[in-house]
Amino acid sequence: MVMMPKNAADARALQKATLAGVVYDKATDPEVGTLLDQLADDQELGPFDAAVVRETRRAYERTTKTPKRIAKRRAELESEGYQAWMVAREAKDFAKFAPVLEEWVALTREACSLIDPSRPAYDVALDEFEKGFTSARLDEVFSQLRDGLVPLLRDIRERGTPPDAGVLAGRFDTRVQAALCEKIAVELGFNLDCGRLDVSVHPFTGGAHVTDVRMTTRFKEDDLTEGLTGAIHETGHALYEQGRNLEYDGLPVNEALSMGVHESQSLLWERMVALGRPFSRYLAPKLAASFPQLSAQLSPDTLYGALNVVKTRSMIRVEADEVTYPLHIILRYELERGLVDGSVAVVDLPRLWNQKMTDYLGCTPADDGEGVLQDVHWSAGAMGYFPTYSLGAMYACQIYKAAAKDLPTLDDDIAAGKFSPLKAWLNVKIHKAGSLHQNGDELMIAATGAPLDPEIFLGYLREKYTELYKL
Amino acid sequence: MVMMPKNAADARALQKATLAGVVYDKATDPEVGTLLDQLADDQELGPFDAAVVRETRRAYERTTKTPKRIAKRRAELESEGYQAWMVAREAKDFAKFAPVLEEWVALTREACSLIDPSRPAYDVALDEFEKGFTSARLDEVFSQLRDGLVPLLRDIRERGTPPDAGVLAGRFDTRVQAALCEKIAVELGFNLDCGRLDVSVHPFTGGAHVTDVRMTTRFKEDDLTEGLTGAIHETGHALYEQGRNLEYDGLPVNEALSMGVHESQSLLWERMVALGRPFSRYLAPKLAASFPQLSAQLSPDTLYGALNVVKTRSMIRVEADEVTYPLHIILRYELERGLVDGSVAVVDLPRLWNQKMTDYLGCTPADDGEGVLQDVHWSAGAMGYFPTYSLGAMYACQIYKAAAKDLPTLDDDIAAGKFSPLKAWLNVKIHKAGSLHQNGDELMIAATGAPLDPEIFLGYLREKYTELYKL
Repeated sequence: MVMMPKNAADARALQKATLAGVVYDKATDPEVGTLLDQLADDQELGPFDAAVVRETRRAYERTTKTPKRIAKRRAELESEGYQAWMVAREAKDFAKFAPVLEEWVALTREACSLIDPSRPAYDVALDEFEKGFTSARLDEVFSQLRDGLVPLLRDIRERGTPPDAGVLAGRFDTRVQAALCEKIAVELGFNLDCGRLDVSVHPFTGGAHVTDVRMTTRFKEDDLTEGLTGAIHETGHALYEQGRNLEYDGLPVNEALSMGVHESQSLLWERMVALGRPFSRYLAPKLAASFPQLSAQLSPDTLYGALNVVKTRSMIRVEADEVTYPLHIILRYELERGLVDGSVAVVDLPRLWNQKMTDYLGCTPADDGEGVLQDVHWSAGAMGYFPTYSLGAMYACQIYKAAAKDLPTLDDDIAAGKFSPLKAWLNVKIHKAGSLHQNGDELMIAATGAPLDPEIFLGYLREKYTELYKL
Repeated sequence: MVMMPKNAADARALQKATLAGVVYDKATDPEVGTLLDQLADDQELGPFDAAVVRETRRAYERTTKTPKRIAKRRAELESEGYQAWMVAREAKDFAKFAPVLEEWVALTREACSLIDPSRPAYDVALDEFEKGFTSARLDEVFSQLRDGLVPLLRDIRERGTPPDAGVLAGRFDTRVQAALCEKIAVELGFNLDCGRLDVSVHPFTGGAHVTDVRMTTRFKEDDLTEGLTGAIHETGHALYEQGRNLEYDGLPVNEALSMGVHESQSLLWERMVALGRPFSRYLAPKLAASFPQLSAQLSPDTLYGALNVVKTRSMIRVEADEVTYPLHIILRYELERGLVDGSVAVVDLPRLWNQKMTDYLGCTPADDGEGVLQDVHWSAGAMGYFPTYSLGAMYACQIYKAAAKDLPTLDDDIAAGKFSPLKAWLNVKIHKAGSLHQNGDELMIAATGAPLDPEIFLGYLREKYTELYKL
C-alpha cells in the first residue's frame, strides 16, 4: 500500500486473491477437522495449547460452514456495495444505497444461521470482530454507557467552559511533524528493528510478523493534533503487534483476541496516555522545540486543554472526541442490531438515525450524506464491527486504571518520557495473552480483576471533563 | 530486501519457504502431468500456447524427477557451502572448500542423470540457467571467442596506448549520483508507474509482476563509473521485465528465455549503449551539470575513453571489463564442465585455475583467495551459471548490431537522448518473445537472422579497441 508502484494494483489484487484461495483450501481441509476432533478431548494440553485448538476450531467451523456461494457473493457485494455507497453519498440519497443494504442484511442472516442456528444472528456476526461477546452483553454495557454519557455531554455543552484550542493553531511543516512523531513512537517503545513507520493516505498498522510490523500515519500542515494523536494511536496498535507471543509464533493463540482489544491498545496510548495531563508535561517542550512559531502561551496546562476540546456539534464519527465518539457507536449498534434481528427496516434507517442523533448528540443531520451515509462499513456488510471501537475505549480505560494501580509512579514516569514500565506491563497482561482468553470480559478479569465495567470509563470521563470544563 | 526491518529476516525466510512448498506441491501435482499429456499432441495450439505447454512440461519434468532427498540436501548444502567458502576464502585455502565442492559435483551428476540420463550431465545442469544450450555448442562458441580474445588482449597490453581515466576521478555526492541515475533510467524508458528504483547493498532487479518491477543500485562516493554503469545495467534488466508479454501474463512463455538472454538486455544498455561513443555525447553535459567539480577536460571524447579502459592485470571477475570478462568466464566454464564430466578432479582445481589465468589473462593469482575461491557460485552448486554472463555479452552485441541495421538513426538518437526507438525494437524482438523460442540460438535467428555468432562480438571488440588503444 505504501511502496507499490501505482499500476501494480490489479496484479497485486490477483496475487492476494490467489493466496487467499490457497489459505482457504488449507484451512478447510477435512484433515484439519479430523485432527481437531482428535484433540478436542485432550486433557493434557496447557492453557495456550488448548486455546490454539479452540481458536483453530472456531475458524474451521466458520469457514467450512460458509458455502462458497455466500463467500463469492460477499466478495462481489463488497465492491458493488462500495460503488453504490459512493454514488448514494455523493447524491445524499439513501434510497440509492438501500437495495445493497437489504441484500447484506439477508446475506448476513443466512450466513449466521448456517454457522450456528442456535444463536442470535447478530451474535454470530459479532464473533467475526469481537469474538465471545453477545448482543445481550452489548445491550447491557452500551445502555449503561449511553445513559451516563448523554447527560454528561449535555452538561458540557450547556454549562461548560471550553478550554482554548488556539494555542495549537498555525501551520506546521509536515516533515518536521513526521520526524517528531517518529521520535515519539520510538520513545513510546516502537522498535524500528522490527518494523517501519511510513507516511500514507490512510493511516494503518499491519505487517507480516511480530518482527515486521508496518505502521503508517499522515500529517496535515494545518492540524498538528491529528498527525500527533494519529501517530500515537497507530503506535499503540504497533506495540501490540510487536508484543505478540513469539513462543506461539504462527499459531492463532498469538493473535489479537479481538478488534476491540486491539483498539484498546491504540486508544490506551492515544487517549489514556497522550491526552492525559502527565503527557502534556512531556510533550509541551518537545512541541516548542520542533515548532518555534508556537505561541508563548503553550504550556503543559494549556496544551492539555487544547488537546481535550469536546465537539459541541458532533455530526461525523471520525471527527468525534472521546466523549461524543461512543454515542455515535451506540447509535450504529442499535440500528444494525435491529436490522439483523428484523426489528428495524432498512427503509426506516435515515429517520431513526436522525432521531437518535438528536436524542444522543443533540444535533440533527441536514441530509443523508452527513447522516446515515457517512460511514463505509455497512457497504462492505460489516455488521458487528462498530461496537469494537467503543469496547476498545472502555477496555483501554479499565486496563490503564489497573496498570496505574500496579505502577504507582506511572504519572511521573509518563511526564519524564519513561514509557517502558507501562509497555512492559501491557506486554505481559495484554499482548502476550493474545487469544488465550475466550472474550474481552475474560481478558479483563485476568488483566484487571473484573469484567468490563462501563462505570470505570464513565467515571474517568466525568472526572476529567468536570475539571476541564469547570462543570 | 530493501524495505524490510532487519530483525524480520528469519520470519521472511520461513514465509518464503512455506510459499515455495505450496508452489512445489501445485507444480508437481499429478493432475498437471495428466493435463500436459492431453495437450502434448494438440495441433491446434498457436506458437505461444505451444510454448506454454512445452515450458510447463520442462519445469514439471525437472521438478518431479528430482527426489525430495536431493532437493533437501541441496538446500542444506547451499548454506553449508556458503559457510565453508567464507572460511576457505578468508584462509586463502582451497582445501577447506574442496569437500563441499566434491559433494556438489556428485549431487549434480546424480540429479542430472535422474532428470535425463541420455544427455551429458553438464547439459542438463546448464538447462537450469541457459535452457536448450549444450556443452558442445558452448565449446564451439567459447573456443572461438577465446582464440580471438587472447591475442587482442595481449595486443592491448603490449602495444596499446590507454585512454586517460583521470577525467572521471574525484569524490561525488551519492545523493546527486542517485538522482542523476534515476533521471537517466527514466529517460532510457524505465516506467516509475510500474516499478521502483531504490538503493541497496547489492544491486539487483526483481519484482512480482510486469507492473511491479523493483530495481536497486548502489553508489560509491569515490567511483562515478560504478554507480552509473550499474544503474544502467539494472535498467536493462528492468526494461526486459517491464516489457514482458502481458497477453500471456502469468504463463511461462512470458518469462525470460534464459539468464543469458536476460543478461543480454542489461549488457546491451550498459555496454553497447552506455559505453558507446554516441552515449558520451548525451552523458557528458549531464555529468558536467550534476558535478561542477569535474575537470574542464571532460568532453564526449575524453568521457568515452575514460569509460573504456581495459584492465591490463585482470585478476578478479567482478572487476573485469568487456575485453577481459569473457576470459574469466571461459576459464570457469572449462573447469566446471570438466568437474561434471569427470575429466577434472576437484583437487587439481587451483593449479588448473592458475595455469589458465596465466594463459588467457596473462596474470597469475598469488593465492586461492584471489584465484579459485573468488566467486560464490560454486558454493551454491551453481554449475552452468557462469557461461550465461558471456553468452549475454555476445547476444547483446549481435542484437544491438541488428537493431542498428533496422534503426538507421540509432547513433544520433542515442546522442540526443532519444532511446524510445531502441526500446520499442527490443520490446518486440526480445522482451515480448519471452520463452517462445527453445534456446538462445533460435531467438537470435528470429531477432537477428542468424544463430549466435561470436565473430560479431569479436569484430566489435577488435574495431573498438584498435581505435581506442591506437593498435
